[in-house]
Amino acid sequence: MFPADRLRDWTQEVFQKIGVSRDDAVLLTDSLIEANLRGVDTHGITRMLCVYVERIRKGVMSAKSNLVVVREKASTALIDCRNSIGQVGAARAMELAIEKARPPGVAFTAVSHSNHFGASAYWAMKALPQGMIGFSSTNAPAAAAPTGGSTAMFGTNPFAIAIPADRELPVVLDLATTVVARGRIVLHAKQNKPLEPGWAFDERGVPTTDPHTAMKGLLAPIGGYKGYGIMLAVDFLCGLLTGSNYGTHFPGFLADNMTEPTDVGSVFAAINVESFMDLPEFTAAVDKALQEIKTSTRAEGVKRIYIPGEIEFEMKADRLAHGIPIPEAVINDFVALGRELGIPFPQA
Amino acid sequence: MFPADRLRDWTQEVFQKIGVSRDDAVLLTDSLIEANLRGVDTHGITRMLCVYVERIRKGVMSAKSNLVVVREKASTALIDCRNSIGQVGAARAMELAIEKARPPGVAFTAVSHSNHFGASAYWAMKALPQGMIGFSSTNAPAAAAPTGGSTAMFGTNPFAIAIPADRELPVVLDLATTVVARGRIVLHAKQNKPLEPGWAFDERGVPTTDPHTAMKGLLAPIGGYKGYGIMLAVDFLCGLLTGSNYGTHFPGFLADNMTEPTDVGSVFAAINVESFMDLPEFTAAVDKALQEIKTSTRAEGVKRIYIPGEIEFEMKADRLAHGIPIPEAVINDFVALGRELGIPFPQA
Repeated sequence: MFPADRLRDWTQEVFQKIGVSRDDAVLLTDSLIEANLRGVDTHGITRMLCVYVERIRKGVMSAKSNLVVVREKASTALIDCRNSIGQVGAARAMELAIEKARPPGVAFTAVSHSNHFGASAYWAMKALPQGMIGFSSTNAPAAAAPTGGSTAMFGTNPFAIAIPADRELPVVLDLATTVVARGRIVLHAKQNKPLEPGWAFDERGVPTTDPHTAMKGLLAPIGGYKGYGIMLAVDFLCGLLTGSNYGTHFPGFLADNMTEPTDVGSVFAAINVESFMDLPEFTAAVDKALQEIKTSTRAEGVKRIYIPGEIEFEMKADRLAHGIPIPEAVINDFVALGRELGIPFPQA
Repeated sequence: MFPADRLRDWTQEVFQKIGVSRDDAVLLTDSLIEANLRGVDTHGITRMLCVYVERIRKGVMSAKSNLVVVREKASTALIDCRNSIGQVGAARAMELAIEKARPPGVAFTAVSHSNHFGASAYWAMKALPQGMIGFSSTNAPAAAAPTGGSTAMFGTNPFAIAIPADRELPVVLDLATTVVARGRIVLHAKQNKPLEPGWAFDERGVPTTDPHTAMKGLLAPIGGYKGYGIMLAVDFLCGLLTGSNYGTHFPGFLADNMTEPTDVGSVFAAINVESFMDLPEFTAAVDKALQEIKTSTRAEGVKRIYIPGEIEFEMKADRLAHGIPIPEAVINDFVALGRELGIPFPQA
């Protein structure tokens, strides 16, 4: 178990060492450590640090931030990230959305030519302390086919929605539009464990529960043709509307592509609650509704009904108290990276 | 087969006869006939006309429109519908969203204390001729439980997104957040046909494929806990943010409740494409992406890959040419209603 602060300090140093400015390193590190604290290790330093470092060192992603606001209106903005770190573009876009929604009102901002921005929830949640409802979404390289197709045309294309509460924890919904992530298929393949029906297709587009067949195949969208529609809408909003990559045009993602910029697009929105209702009245109503859901009759054998985001909040409290677990293989990678950069990884 | 125009004229007369103004009758009728033309008969006069008429005649829904804009900002508006016809509130809210997004920018509007607004797509599509991306959503009486629960806390809570194209048909996504509609369960029960896994739960919250058990049980959200999260977000945005009903607080819907107003809330958004990209550039990119999807490799045994909304556009062309089919039981209801009101139903 590693204390978050120790990992944070080390990660910031690593990013600065490879050319990232201090401010950007702080921001990027916070997005990754926060994902680890929330138990979303797929978006934490555990999976992302070495990949980001390699991308920056190979020049596939720019260490220096180079954002340009190319269109700006009272309630909208488009920021060209010019291959800056995804988190830097996302932070600026979400800040702008919040600023523009403050009068009060709503705002919708977008970034083009960007990179992986970490966990989507991190950006939507920025709206919460402002008394706003936050939204964020990004497109991603293709992993799922349109309904009836057998070519991967859509990424997991996640979106997040954050809704403020008063005494209750806020609602934080963050979901990929595929039933499961690719990592889940990989895990089942390693364990020779059949998939649940509806998770994946083989490479001809036929449903399969065999994890090895699914590895070469396609992820299934949530709700069949409904999820296909959502994926398509996310790809068109994030990719087409920003003039970034979309559909089959990605050169691959993260570790799979160390030669070309990813060129994803992302969108962000903020809805100022005061546009519609006084904030205390709204957050009290949210509290009441959340209590009603949490105390509603449980299904047989179920101990507890969770609100979206609740598991992550509890995980964060736990990991702040007891530290972040890091798999041994990842520790070895961190030790090697630290040695190479002259910034020793602080072992427990 | 009934020509749309003949059904339209008769329906308008029926609504006017029971106290709806001419303008509102034209609007309401268009929303219903358009649903029938698009093949969405669940939201056409085939299912809704007699229900709407009964609600108005019993005084559960107001024939007269009584909209009040209670909060209005540059990019937002909240309209209190005061139990007016849902379509009348939705039309005003979508018009306001489009007007506010014109400068260019984005806008987000909401209605409170409203009624069933017809098919969600109808409102999102209003944005298309304006060079905008449209969004609409509504909450609805509970039919699905939170993940792990066995009490219905969420409606089918549909949303629609419409994205303009140039030569291609626009993208029109309209989906309920349950895997299937209740009508599908009813149909399987009538035919004693097992449900597909993942469609429904029994009344204790346990998954079932028995249609009769499911009839007393719960609809499943798309993507399990993911769909639960989307339903919750729709309910909180449409219900809580507008101060309308939500969760378990609905008195029942449509035909199931002829004593109290439904009191649903709905939200609408318009994104002016020009805020981000010149419209012709965007619609050309949409055309290209749609072509890529439609011509991508098909899964085994699949004849064609459809874009969301495409089936409905083709259905509309067909029904404009050949008429709208109406089941015999519904024709009988129409004949009886027409006789009662002194507006004979125009048989083929």
